[in-house]
Amino acid sequence: MSEVLDRPSIRTAHAFKVIGQPAPRIDGPEKVTGAAKFTADYTLPGTAIAKVVRSPHAHARITRLDVSKAEAYPGVVCVLTARDIADLEREPTSRNHNVLARTQVLYAGHPVAAVAASTREAAEEAVALIEVEYEVLAPILDPLESIRRETATIVHEGAEEGVHIDRSEEQIHAGGAGGLAEEDEIAELNNVSSQVHFKRGDVNAGFAQADFVVEGRWISNSVHQSYLEPHSTLAAWDAQGNLSIWCSTQAQFHIRDMIARMVKIPISKVRVVSPEIGGGFGAKFGVMVPLTVLLARKAGVPVKHVLTRSEDLVAATPAPYTVTEVKLGANRAGKITAMKARVVMDTGAYPGAPMSIATILLAGSYEIPHFELDGYEVLTNKASVGAYRAPGAPNVAFGVEAAVEALAARVGIDPLEFRLRNVIEEGGKWPNGNTLPAIGARSVLEALRAHPISKQVLKQDEGRGYAIGAWPGGAGAASAYCRANPDGTFQIITGTNNLTGSTTSLAQIAAEELGVPLALVKVVTADTDSGPHSPAAGGSQILYTMGHAASLAAKACREQMLDLAARHLGVEKAQLTVDGGVVKAPNGKVLTYRRIADLAMQGPGPIVGSGAHRPGRPFPGYAATCAIVHVDRETGQTTVRRVVTAQDAGTAINPMSVEGQMQGATVQGIGMALTEELIYNQDGRVANPTLLDYRLLTCGDLPSIETVLTSVPTEAGPYGARIVGEPPIIPPGAAVGNAIVHAIGKPVYTFPATPERVFRVLHSNSA
Amino acid sequence: MSEVLDRPSIRTAHAFKVIGQPAPRIDGPEKVTGAAKFTADYTLPGTAIAKVVRSPHAHARITRLDVSKAEAYPGVVCVLTARDIADLEREPTSRNHNVLARTQVLYAGHPVAAVAASTREAAEEAVALIEVEYEVLAPILDPLESIRRETATIVHEGAEEGVHIDRSEEQIHAGGAGGLAEEDEIAELNNVSSQVHFKRGDVNAGFAQADFVVEGRWISNSVHQSYLEPHSTLAAWDAQGNLSIWCSTQAQFHIRDMIARMVKIPISKVRVVSPEIGGGFGAKFGVMVPLTVLLARKAGVPVKHVLTRSEDLVAATPAPYTVTEVKLGANRAGKITAMKARVVMDTGAYPGAPMSIATILLAGSYEIPHFELDGYEVLTNKASVGAYRAPGAPNVAFGVEAAVEALAARVGIDPLEFRLRNVIEEGGKWPNGNTLPAIGARSVLEALRAHPISKQVLKQDEGRGYAIGAWPGGAGAASAYCRANPDGTFQIITGTNNLTGSTTSLAQIAAEELGVPLALVKVVTADTDSGPHSPAAGGSQILYTMGHAASLAAKACREQMLDLAARHLGVEKAQLTVDGGVVKAPNGKVLTYRRIADLAMQGPGPIVGSGAHRPGRPFPGYAATCAIVHVDRETGQTTVRRVVTAQDAGTAINPMSVEGQMQGATVQGIGMALTEELIYNQDGRVANPTLLDYRLLTCGDLPSIETVLTSVPTEAGPYGARIVGEPPIIPPGAAVGNAIVHAIGKPVYTFPATPERVFRVLHSNSA
Repeated sequence: MSEVLDRPSIRTAHAFKVIGQPAPRIDGPEKVTGAAKFTADYTLPGTAIAKVVRSPHAHARITRLDVSKAEAYPGVVCVLTARDIADLEREPTSRNHNVLARTQVLYAGHPVAAVAASTREAAEEAVALIEVEYEVLAPILDPLESIRRETATIVHEGAEEGVHIDRSEEQIHAGGAGGLAEEDEIAELNNVSSQVHFKRGDVNAGFAQADFVVEGRWISNSVHQSYLEPHSTLAAWDAQGNLSIWCSTQAQFHIRDMIARMVKIPISKVRVVSPEIGGGFGAKFGVMVPLTVLLARKAGVPVKHVLTRSEDLVAATPAPYTVTEVKLGANRAGKITAMKARVVMDTGAYPGAPMSIATILLAGSYEIPHFELDGYEVLTNKASVGAYRAPGAPNVAFGVEAAVEALAARVGIDPLEFRLRNVIEEGGKWPNGNTLPAIGARSVLEALRAHPISKQVLKQDEGRGYAIGAWPGGAGAASAYCRANPDGTFQIITGTNNLTGSTTSLAQIAAEELGVPLALVKVVTADTDSGPHSPAAGGSQILYTMGHAASLAAKACREQMLDLAARHLGVEKAQLTVDGGVVKAPNGKVLTYRRIADLAMQGPGPIVGSGAHRPGRPFPGYAATCAIVHVDRETGQTTVRRVVTAQDAGTAINPMSVEGQMQGATVQGIGMALTEELIYNQDGRVANPTLLDYRLLTCGDLPSIETVLTSVPTEAGPYGARIVGEPPIIPPGAAVGNAIVHAIGKPVYTFPATPERVFRVLHSNSA
Repeated sequence: MSEVLDRPSIRTAHAFKVIGQPAPRIDGPEKVTGAAKFTADYTLPGTAIAKVVRSPHAHARITRLDVSKAEAYPGVVCVLTARDIADLEREPTSRNHNVLARTQVLYAGHPVAAVAASTREAAEEAVALIEVEYEVLAPILDPLESIRRETATIVHEGAEEGVHIDRSEEQIHAGGAGGLAEEDEIAELNNVSSQVHFKRGDVNAGFAQADFVVEGRWISNSVHQSYLEPHSTLAAWDAQGNLSIWCSTQAQFHIRDMIARMVKIPISKVRVVSPEIGGGFGAKFGVMVPLTVLLARKAGVPVKHVLTRSEDLVAATPAPYTVTEVKLGANRAGKITAMKARVVMDTGAYPGAPMSIATILLAGSYEIPHFELDGYEVLTNKASVGAYRAPGAPNVAFGVEAAVEALAARVGIDPLEFRLRNVIEEGGKWPNGNTLPAIGARSVLEALRAHPISKQVLKQDEGRGYAIGAWPGGAGAASAYCRANPDGTFQIITGTNNLTGSTTSLAQIAAEELGVPLALVKVVTADTDSGPHSPAAGGSQILYTMGHAASLAAKACREQMLDLAARHLGVEKAQLTVDGGVVKAPNGKVLTYRRIADLAMQGPGPIVGSGAHRPGRPFPGYAATCAIVHVDRETGQTTVRRVVTAQDAGTAINPMSVEGQMQGATVQGIGMALTEELIYNQDGRVANPTLLDYRLLTCGDLPSIETVLTSVPTEAGPYGARIVGEPPIIPPGAAVGNAIVHAIGKPVYTFPATPERVFRVLHSNSA
């Protein structure tokens, strides 16, 4: 179910033929029939299988490591230990570089050694023969404790030159926004790997103007991205030291560069191939690649490493446990006067948490005259965290949107009306100084106001909640090739993965530019050797970057074909029109693209073109959700009765695809609110490392997800299209949280709001 | 050993930095260490192995075919018979389409059924369970008999609409020259699948002017291309009917088009990937691909088919048995006055022999005022023939060059001097009407005259022989992409295979255009989905086509980088110079390409470019050989004592690579002259289907091959470079033949001139 609210378009005069038409994903049949090939399906001759020995302790010193029995085991090609990677950083503090623990283990699941063997069975048996002894240390698990203690153990006790922070991946996710954060020098706080501070006006003066103030500390627990396909890598070195990597990734060029830097070879010697990817959601940036690459280097044969589901849950890069403290004030007129907020984000054993963008987004949706925002990325003895779709944003939305809803209640205004009075508009400024272009924040709130869900009469024990969220939109460097085929079809060649259906959208863009039906355009992802440089399929950037590159490449081909047609038909090029792959001259003569492609083959040469683009600044996207839930007061069980997510997609290239993105994101956001949580026990081990115990929502848990598209075009995207992937995961969790609060009449501070937690809130004495 | 004879160059003013430098093949180490991956090395999940049941009879009707036992055999996925391919042509007469015999078998080795099974062993065992009964027919083996008989069996007795002739592959090999042949309608001659006739002046008047006339009929036997890697294919259909093919090929786009036509799907649904190729020499145009594709279609799983060496010798596409009849006249002044000649080329069971270009080349090296040239392509019950490096040219050179040498002797002039008096020059015309541009025919003869081999005093039983040959050079449609990498390196992306070292030459061209050292350019062959449309690596066309496309693509990148550098440095673009990857402004400021590539990533977008080219007409290349042989009169054994091949390479892009091509071609040409021969017994079976019995020359058989490069630049190639691959295989065999004749004083009419044949000539009574 989807409605489109039309707004004045920057291109209304243009009647699109392919753009804006709902198009099923071109790659759909392959995937639903199970025929698509993923990394684990690929094998090279002589490939060895990798298995990893992992620390059972969250914090310990390695006192003995004996791999001799494993090395002698039949079928074992080699065993990799820290001694084999002494050429890397001496005491690495980056999660990508510390592929194997050296002197100490920093989280339960930390790799200690890796085996490459001719079969999986041999590898598993050899792993069991590796002897490791530890001196167990007390783990630090709570970031608030980690940041507070003044003389306690620090997580990276061995690091001599401070903690190395590689922000290259984080910047991809956060686009221009993250890169512009005012990042201070690292202060002398225990285990704080980075911190940011934003200030506007005089926050004390702001609170003095407030008639109402609310305050609270919200916690969102660590969740896992739960992609269908676990991390998988196949790595092979050739005789000349060239390295080929097949892996499940969203970011093949990023992995190429990262691995080249790590093993100190030119990037042109690294080839990354991305087969189909079974989901990434921000986590598939190659964090599991280095170990396989280094194991293959020692093994001298190709090595394949596929994580089990449990390994992936325990030792990949989940989304961070986040503490969001918010104090928010408003006057009687319902205008927000001040915000003071702090984000403490648990980054696990290595830096890399999306703390910076999360802190910015604390004040990303509202006009706030006075604020002080502080962000801390804090090390603990858990698996290092990674990006998860709009990384950091849903986490802090739980706090900000709960505070907004509570404040509206205190002021006595409808929470949606309160948001509309304070919503940020074009010309507004984000905490990092970004001045906003035309944005759809107001439009998505208005879409919810116009939707029947806002008028729906609530039943017993039901509550309604709202939330809004923003994402900046990435801005990487993109290029594409286009080629006319001799049968009248076209090929768009990219170097980016088809993570979210972008293959279909890019085909629509090229088809529109060329003037042909969608079926005549094929989009191909080439590897990093043969493909054009393309950005990661992350940070909601493909449309703003590859959308233009594909459009320009298609245009380059079209112009060459029109030049040729004009010469051939004896008319001026400007007089020609194209429709359905047929070029028409005013004199009634026509030439098909097929014929022109053939003429070119005989004449100047095949029709090929290229296009490149890099957006100048972020053009954020906004989404808002309204949810109605029912809470069973006997059990604390929350049931989502109705949920509507509205998103401003500008000119939606493929409304069907946008709707799919919104539905998937809404389910994920609600999962964070209700069931999903990596539970660490007191020793720092994950207590629920299977999908039986880590509870993902299914279709049976939820109503049909309703979506509304609004259309505030942006100059950033082709045809006024706006980013799609990340905004809609931000508000659903917070909206469900607010709906629970509305239903039970008491605040909820910890998410997921499991039945047990809600039950406790219901039966506690606090208001 | 190589000498370069300098001639006035069209570009002497230009001091090349990379072009003209000898460069070892970039792909060398992978290949000599055995690390390179070929088609047989690739496997997809669930891949079945194919094995073929082949007819033991050269001509027979199939009276019974029972595959039921094979179908029931454990591990068998399916058995393919003619019934499964009824959707193809009803009674196909093309070698590519008749993948399985239907009502009759046409040669010994003709596939009758094919098995796909989970293992090679199961496939082989199942093949043995297939029951076939035949009604054996008399085979037609001798093309002269096949053409002569007026009422005999015709090879394609079932063909209702005449023999279908697909010339698309032949035209690739022969370039523009083949396509321009005056091809008549098929006349009513038995088993003649095509014929051509060329005429100039009045041949009777020409012979009337002759003071001396020689005449003879020469036979060159069928030889095999003897690539190291046998035909190999891996084919996989996906759920949407897309077809992926990995195969050992020189011509991935040709195969894409051919297979799409055959199975009637759009070409954009066919992806052809060419891994490394272990030699092709013209034979790797996909003739073994259809069977695998159709077997995979029925099997529903990927299917891999790798020919055994014996299968490849018996049932692939060897070079044709050729009869060349030549009558040649000259006057006392040593000028040729007339030629009457006929080529009868045995095409085997299907059309596709290089008869047309062979007939043209009868008069391709000399000015001949009057001629009549007739060519016949004749069907017999042998494996269908294919292209073999300068296809057809070495075959007819045995006759033409023997006649020329005999005529020189009759006139009483040194054979080299005789050739120089008659050699064709710029402005001369080939029989097909092509007017020749600047060519190196005279230069290669002069190079031999200047070489010590022409003055070497002959010992007892030694003889010296000369020959010359020409090849038109292909002229396909080519395109390429270029991309600047952020580390200052560049990538050239092509869709053509690295058959002859072209990767290295294209890298040299791009490096020269960009102004960087060779090591900073990487050339990549992409598949037909992601690569730019590129011609086959056949017909000596890569330099004339891809050479320009790569050069243009590199230039497009260079110009964008200079634009950016000019803006950044604040100078005019025209003032900039590039050296070693550094852009220099007159004000002393410099910018590295690395920095510019990085700037582009931040600014307009990545640097990408494309280039396309198609040459207008053929620009032939010439080579000549002088050989000194010793003939043992007791045994008839010929030993090559010294051999020098001279070739005009224009501006040689990579002299080391050109020399390698000339040496390899000379060995192959001498093989045709001395040892190589597919021997068909009286039933039409190959009597020597192993490399023990099919005798290839080795290093131990030959002296070091000496080479001389001449340099008559041509406007067709980049920097005045000329085609390389095919010309040098044409003269060596004929030169060795002439040397034998010189040594023994008697004509030799049948090649290879094995010891047995030479012994018989020595002891025959004829002069």
